[in-house]
Amino acid sequence: MKVSAQGSVPDLAIIAVRGMPEVRPGDNLTELLLATNIDLRNHDCLVITQKIVSKAENRLVAIEPTDPLSHKPIVESESVRILRRRGNLVISETAHGFICANAGVDLSNVERGQAALLPKDSDRSARRIKEQIHARTGVSVGVIISDTFGRPWRRGLTDIAIGCAGIAAIVDMRGSTDTFGRQLLVTEVATVDEIAAATELVMGKATGIPAAIVRGLPHKWFRESSVRSEIVRSPSEDLFR
Amino acid sequence: MKVSAQGSVPDLAIIAVRGMPEVRPGDNLTELLLATNIDLRNHDCLVITQKIVSKAENRLVAIEPTDPLSHKPIVESESVRILRRRGNLVISETAHGFICANAGVDLSNVERGQAALLPKDSDRSARRIKEQIHARTGVSVGVIISDTFGRPWRRGLTDIAIGCAGIAAIVDMRGSTDTFGRQLLVTEVATVDEIAAATELVMGKATGIPAAIVRGLPHKWFRESSVRSEIVRSPSEDLFR
Repeated sequence: MKVSAQGSVPDLAIIAVRGMPEVRPGDNLTELLLATNIDLRNHDCLVITQKIVSKAENRLVAIEPTDPLSHKPIVESESVRILRRRGNLVISETAHGFICANAGVDLSNVERGQAALLPKDSDRSARRIKEQIHARTGVSVGVIISDTFGRPWRRGLTDIAIGCAGIAAIVDMRGSTDTFGRQLLVTEVATVDEIAAATELVMGKATGIPAAIVRGLPHKWFRESSVRSEIVRSPSEDLFR
Repeated sequence: MKVSAQGSVPDLAIIAVRGMPEVRPGDNLTELLLATNIDLRNHDCLVITQKIVSKAENRLVAIEPTDPLSHKPIVESESVRILRRRGNLVISETAHGFICANAGVDLSNVERGQAALLPKDSDRSARRIKEQIHARTGVSVGVIISDTFGRPWRRGLTDIAIGCAGIAAIVDMRGSTDTFGRQLLVTEVATVDEIAAATELVMGKATGIPAAIVRGLPHKWFRESSVRSEIVRSPSEDLFR
């Protein structure tokens, strides 16, 4: 009997959402996403980049286009605490509890004279889109809002989740395999961050793909959750604040 | 003309490698991986968890099984610098330049009375496996050695790359789309970390899947690289050491 090679059916498929138009303030993102004719199925997880959520929610502020530092007061006002400064770079904590460069204020891929702020509540944004998709199509998906953050100690940026709905932010992967009773580290995996990272691989930065679908995640991961309640670490349990 | 739905062909496929036996010191990982009948193709990226690399390379040390703190001297000796201590938890820098809990010393899923250390040089381990696969099959793949690390500020662990070969650790995603000349953040993406995170989604922790394949990455990402040279941030450019 010939055993066929592994790998004919992927365990996980990542599908870029192509054909999204430029998003403008007031646009309904759900309508725009569905208009691309994406094939959404139950237990798909839809990942949407922060930039188009911020644009749709009109989280845009005017800056002086000829002044390369005109966004700096905005960074300060979006920060509740400054952790580090070096040159023009500010690492600060936002009102959401995120710690990132320039409080998430973003000048790339927005119109000249504008800066994009983080959504006010990305968990709520994700929940709204999830509910609209269900109302429009009857399909129940998880939704993640992703953004691109740096991290200490390691070069390079990775995409992480700043909001989620209908998909577990954290999954406890502890199994029964370690029978020795001496599991040193808890293995609570930040699945939403791993899903966001995975989709960044097909979205890139300059290709005009602001969303992607992950298909094949375990059904039990689809539950009510939020980044705010499960991922953001409180200062009291944080060793690096 | 009916436009067919997007998503019939995934942009990226993640395929778990099933059927690996328990790995023992001295085992040839390449032989064991190929014996599972995996369908490896050019420009696939094979991600292998640290644990089986450490076992194959006999990075196991004896500890006193009845003493829950007997690994602590090993953590100290594997650390070149301690960053934080809280209770039994040590966050330290390893000789490789990684900053992680307990210097990467791991007691889970190893035999009682043993602790697994990180590979001496995971980039070299990745390169060896990549070369052996090419010698045995003629197929040219990227190889990543992954491990599960925590991070400051965010709860939950994610898989990251501790070694790589034949796949870019960092990809510069800066495109020509931002014509304003005011791109605030460089978008150097830590692709190997995102690939490692993506594969963790199919590997879990207790399912006995210690490797996975990522298929569909851009061909231009396949080049000589290493985690040590591209990802590990030097203390002088690090704001959090």
